[in-house]
Amino acid sequence: MARHIRMIDIICKKRDGKELDKDEIKFFIDGIVSGAIPDYQTSALLMAIHFQGMTDRELADLTLLMAKSGEMVDLSGIKGLKLDKHSSGGVGDKTTMVVAPIVAACGGIMAKMSGRGLGHTGGTIDKLEAIPGFNTALCKEDFIHQVNEIGVSVIGQTGNLAPADKILYALRDVTGTVPNIPLIASSIMSKKLAAGADCILLDVKFGSGAFMKTPESAVELAQKMVSIGENNGRRTAAYVTSMDSPLGQNIGNALEVQEVIDVLRGQGPEDLIIECVSLAASLLHMANKGDMETCRQLVRTSIENGSALEKLREMVKAQGGDVSVIDAPDGFSKAGVCHELKSREAGYISGMNTEEIGIASTMLGAGREQLDSVIDPAAGIVIWRKIGDRVDKGDVLATLYTSRDELLAPAAERYYGALTYSSKQPEKGSLVYAFVDKNGVERL
Amino acid sequence: MARHIRMIDIICKKRDGKELDKDEIKFFIDGIVSGAIPDYQTSALLMAIHFQGMTDRELADLTLLMAKSGEMVDLSGIKGLKLDKHSSGGVGDKTTMVVAPIVAACGGIMAKMSGRGLGHTGGTIDKLEAIPGFNTALCKEDFIHQVNEIGVSVIGQTGNLAPADKILYALRDVTGTVPNIPLIASSIMSKKLAAGADCILLDVKFGSGAFMKTPESAVELAQKMVSIGENNGRRTAAYVTSMDSPLGQNIGNALEVQEVIDVLRGQGPEDLIIECVSLAASLLHMANKGDMETCRQLVRTSIENGSALEKLREMVKAQGGDVSVIDAPDGFSKAGVCHELKSREAGYISGMNTEEIGIASTMLGAGREQLDSVIDPAAGIVIWRKIGDRVDKGDVLATLYTSRDELLAPAAERYYGALTYSSKQPEKGSLVYAFVDKNGVERL
Repeated sequence: MARHIRMIDIICKKRDGKELDKDEIKFFIDGIVSGAIPDYQTSALLMAIHFQGMTDRELADLTLLMAKSGEMVDLSGIKGLKLDKHSSGGVGDKTTMVVAPIVAACGGIMAKMSGRGLGHTGGTIDKLEAIPGFNTALCKEDFIHQVNEIGVSVIGQTGNLAPADKILYALRDVTGTVPNIPLIASSIMSKKLAAGADCILLDVKFGSGAFMKTPESAVELAQKMVSIGENNGRRTAAYVTSMDSPLGQNIGNALEVQEVIDVLRGQGPEDLIIECVSLAASLLHMANKGDMETCRQLVRTSIENGSALEKLREMVKAQGGDVSVIDAPDGFSKAGVCHELKSREAGYISGMNTEEIGIASTMLGAGREQLDSVIDPAAGIVIWRKIGDRVDKGDVLATLYTSRDELLAPAAERYYGALTYSSKQPEKGSLVYAFVDKNGVERL
Repeated sequence: MARHIRMIDIICKKRDGKELDKDEIKFFIDGIVSGAIPDYQTSALLMAIHFQGMTDRELADLTLLMAKSGEMVDLSGIKGLKLDKHSSGGVGDKTTMVVAPIVAACGGIMAKMSGRGLGHTGGTIDKLEAIPGFNTALCKEDFIHQVNEIGVSVIGQTGNLAPADKILYALRDVTGTVPNIPLIASSIMSKKLAAGADCILLDVKFGSGAFMKTPESAVELAQKMVSIGENNGRRTAAYVTSMDSPLGQNIGNALEVQEVIDVLRGQGPEDLIIECVSLAASLLHMANKGDMETCRQLVRTSIENGSALEKLREMVKAQGGDVSVIDAPDGFSKAGVCHELKSREAGYISGMNTEEIGIASTMLGAGREQLDSVIDPAAGIVIWRKIGDRVDKGDVLATLYTSRDELLAPAAERYYGALTYSSKQPEKGSLVYAFVDKNGVERL
């Protein structure tokens, strides 16, 4: 006889701190997708989860059922271990565009679906589209064919991934249950499970430009996500990295692609290089290419011998992009207005409110405030002074790029407001704070 | 400039354990009554309140605003301090019908609105209607006139009392937020504040026949309700009393009225007398009729000299009832079927699941399972053996009364199932456990 499950009993069970079983979670997810469960019961359960949490087992079941509420992408046409990498979002985070070609150059397989930017954060798909002609909307057959041919493709999310997550997210947004680590973890991981990769490397950000404000909360989120992935048969690991200042020097779509090319040429800013080498080496390690030190050496070699840059060129070509911009970055569209932002104070830069800097870049045209905003690929910011740097009055802090003169003044004020100064040189926080996998947390 | 309040901020504030101010609570109550606030936000707030509680100040504001969402009964046409008494509900609880005439006979003023029974609990209005001709639906003018003439009237709840409570209660019922002490307290007290009395005496039940299962939780509920009343300018006190066995001997509407008459004649079961004397004396004490010992003596005298019974007679007459039943209880309608329930075991009765006994009585026709069920005034149970009594096999435990033969067997099984036996004589629990007023909790 079929078991009789009622939503009210599920709410009371979680309210009282008990563990929901798989049938109950399935009843809940089926009910929100079909509409059988009213929103007022869903929001009561979400608030009870906020206070009582979920066990790793509950969270693994919840997340897989959210994933299965929509399309489960079938990557079985691609041979070998499919690798995925996900960042929880930040400012100047162009690591996917660096890491994907490196990994492919070293024999890994990157079949990656990425998102667009919203609010103060950028998105890989917007950045790639700054390359003239680059097509991020390949059909599934072309996507699989390209990965089999050259080992890498990055496209936009297609299809109906995890519709249960969309329903829950919309309700969480209006019922005060967004900032909850188990619910954030299941939201992100439901889409990762649906996207079909065998190995998932997460980059969980903390700090002034991230959703998680402290490294401890980012570690907790990383642990939950690793647990969800591993409990669902995916090899999963996570780096916990700082977003207390923008990553690298460049913010904005074309500007970030130029910086990616710099890094793959063995140049570029040190923080970005450090983070990309760790991410790429870990992905290769997950793909059984050797121990971590071996994989780090593979990564460094792929940069030194040019094979990683060559792989980027192959990918751009395969997806219809203009490869000439790789050798001559002048080919990118130009911003009509550029402005050097000069320091009004003297001292050491002791803090950069990274979310505010992201907003300044969005104001210049580099991001979108609503889902349907149009992006200016040439807009953005190049940062010349970061935390710990000494500046005198009048020194250039950053260069702002935009197509519309009137956007300059408000964005400049926003940038100025994001900086704090001190008379003593501040200590630098750690960039790569921790590594989390099924064996636990390694503080770096 | 008017302050801009948003429901999402109210939810987040309570979720994070902060205190809501009066404007925020008013925004919430106005919004649920007007429909401007969707149910899913209300249920999220209720669940947050479940976990974070409410301060006494928040609860006082919430309850008054719930009361003010509907009609505030105006009793200013009645001279003197108007007294109200409320029981949190039980089985065999006929105290209002005993206490109201006693208090009026001693010079107190009882202008009381009572409810009907539902589920396993009875209601005073149903019981009074077992008196042939008794009218519980007086218009407001007649109600006030009667109280001014004879000092007492008991009628059914009229009008639109605390509609916000009805909305919240319906939502709590389906979202797992019923068993929460602050929310229960505000629900009860919103209707008491709206009903207009100056002094409110509460009888909070605990045990197997009550909503509160432990004396500690009943004390907590009593404290919250006293705080709400006092913070809103009403003199408020509470007894915490046991519902671990039915109160008195008789359950069922006409049967309970007969027991009321017994008590007012100076007879009747001891537990019922003890509780009624305490309740009546406290009401007189609240109405400034003397210290507690003086008031207890007034109560005892009103029973001994017959003035309390005479007051009941006056009230029945004033409300159109047949006063002949007071002297000749044979005038009540008779049950067609009566059955002596004989013990199947020998030993001491050590426990009576009072909720189950209330359900047995409801099954016989004495109560209603749905709001529109029809009540049989003659149906019910007379209990002959209670906790601590020694019985042998075949001894009569209780007499069951009903109009329909086929109801007997299932009700009898329910009654048998409610009893537990032991070989040793059990200790009796306390009947009147504590008294709570603005000065604190007095353990009795």
